[in-house]
Amino acid sequence: MRNLAAMCLAGLLGLSPQSHLQADEAPPVLVIHGGAGTLSRDEMTIESETAFRAGLMRALLAGYQVLDGGGSAVDAVSTAIVTMEDDPLFNAGRGAVFTHGGRNEMDAAIMDGETREAGAVAGVRLVKNPILLARAVMRDSPHVMLTGQGAEEFALAQGMDLRPPEYFRTQRRWKQLMRRLEPTAGRPRTIDRVGTVGAVALDQHGRLAAGTSTGGMTGKRWGRVGDSPIIGAGTYAANPDCAVSASGHGEYFIRAVVAHDICARVRYQGLEPPQAARQVVLEDLVQMGGEGGVIVLGGGGQFSAVFNTTGMYRGVIDGPGRARVAIYLDEDLSPAVSGGE
Amino acid sequence: MRNLAAMCLAGLLGLSPQSHLQADEAPPVLVIHGGAGTLSRDEMTIESETAFRAGLMRALLAGYQVLDGGGSAVDAVSTAIVTMEDDPLFNAGRGAVFTHGGRNEMDAAIMDGETREAGAVAGVRLVKNPILLARAVMRDSPHVMLTGQGAEEFALAQGMDLRPPEYFRTQRRWKQLMRRLEPTAGRPRTIDRVGTVGAVALDQHGRLAAGTSTGGMTGKRWGRVGDSPIIGAGTYAANPDCAVSASGHGEYFIRAVVAHDICARVRYQGLEPPQAARQVVLEDLVQMGGEGGVIVLGGGGQFSAVFNTTGMYRGVIDGPGRARVAIYLDEDLSPAVSGGE
Repeated sequence: MRNLAAMCLAGLLGLSPQSHLQADEAPPVLVIHGGAGTLSRDEMTIESETAFRAGLMRALLAGYQVLDGGGSAVDAVSTAIVTMEDDPLFNAGRGAVFTHGGRNEMDAAIMDGETREAGAVAGVRLVKNPILLARAVMRDSPHVMLTGQGAEEFALAQGMDLRPPEYFRTQRRWKQLMRRLEPTAGRPRTIDRVGTVGAVALDQHGRLAAGTSTGGMTGKRWGRVGDSPIIGAGTYAANPDCAVSASGHGEYFIRAVVAHDICARVRYQGLEPPQAARQVVLEDLVQMGGEGGVIVLGGGGQFSAVFNTTGMYRGVIDGPGRARVAIYLDEDLSPAVSGGE
Repeated sequence: MRNLAAMCLAGLLGLSPQSHLQADEAPPVLVIHGGAGTLSRDEMTIESETAFRAGLMRALLAGYQVLDGGGSAVDAVSTAIVTMEDDPLFNAGRGAVFTHGGRNEMDAAIMDGETREAGAVAGVRLVKNPILLARAVMRDSPHVMLTGQGAEEFALAQGMDLRPPEYFRTQRRWKQLMRRLEPTAGRPRTIDRVGTVGAVALDQHGRLAAGTSTGGMTGKRWGRVGDSPIIGAGTYAANPDCAVSASGHGEYFIRAVVAHDICARVRYQGLEPPQAARQVVLEDLVQMGGEGGVIVLGGGGQFSAVFNTTGMYRGVIDGPGRARVAIYLDEDLSPAVSGGE
């Protein structure tokens, strides 16, 4: 618990208690997730639970520092996600799950809700922070989506931080692959698939952004791409309606175009973002059989984490010292905030 | 003109004039496109115009034969697209444009509106008919999207028809790449980018489907993926609302989640599919600066081709002998059909 306490203390002390807001500025909000899935207290040790909570808190504080200093929603989203990509606990960047062939192949996407510009990468193996590559695609290329070795050539040309395959490899994920490949292996334990990371942010200027980063599914084959790097499926942001980042069984999220469908209900039906997210995740996806969840944030700061699984690593920070994290279904992120869980 | 006349004759003679419809069945409709772009009569020779019209007619007749025989919308869409992939005129399958590195890298997607199942492939080099691979991903894999060599390994395992790189190579596309790579080359002539193919269909049982196949942009780099294989962007179908296949500057179509946005306006605002398509293509995309168009088809048979460019290779068939094709903006596909252009 020492790490967690230290993090909370940092949250209380490290961020200025004075508000930097001008009269026409909104209080910034950052919501993050570290994946949705079957997360029961029985399967989790105290040590791993504590580590996940500390990891979420670290990402929240790093991202919020950007917002608190007047930075953009895009910068806050990428900073929070970089923190989780660098943390081997999460299935993104270092600690990504292994493919059927024993490699780490990562996907990421980011979208600026103000300009509706977007960048995405799929199947990259050597890029330390795929979310930063997605951002470079958005900012410094004429394209939205780059894949495979081509995406890595672009990363090299951009002078991005590349690492050898060993950097991404963790013993825990390797064991998950070995279990998955056993001839007697049944359906993989859902918990082995959990860990996609994502963030949505609203900055002081009212701009929304969303980002997602993942190693995908343990044992994936054939260059499989999930929903995370698909704009509209796992990642989407459009001012003033909403920003969404998803995590779950990606195939269903692609078919249901989950992130855009949530924002479309906000835009065309006038729903609040949390209500639209509940309709899509708890009704439509459940009918289709798609497990997972989303974090959603509206232009007025309304937020929620909505999931049809037993848990979702998640957290929110909406003011100095106001960071909360949660894992299980029965935990409440935000009783004091209208429109929250 | 001989080919075209032969095709029209085949349309009149080859398809049964008797309707096979039962009382509770709808008249089937098939709409196809061969790409939207700057297509002016000045730039087009009579020979090439005639060849394009004949190619469209051939695809319409092949696809309609499936529908007329009681086949599914998915089968009609893939049959029409296979016909255009095999035709070197179009930028899909044989005749695909070249990447910056002088290769053909193709993308395709298909979606069944009834089940909302979908399949997509990106960056495949050796698959004769990428749309059939997308369909195999939908039917015979647990995934929705496969990419690159991995997708080709899956194709091999499925016993699909693979061809060597020379099969896809045409002199016309090679010259386009050479022009594109000249140091003095400016913005590529839009016409060089035209040729993505797609189809939407409504079968006798009221099922909708959509599919799209492309070689992408001449001179593309870094494993760039456009909107065609992105479910929700270039391809989407959901009963009973609508089916959409797009063609244009893919980056804008991804950012605007064009295909799903059109269907969302039908579903949540009660618009007719052609009206929703006009809002998205002629208003939103124009504001963003995104050139291109879509074909759209509703569950009641309402259809349209909507584009913000000067032309779109397109065609419709909604009964035996009722096939029409068009290229330029001032041509009318369907004056007799409510909801058409």
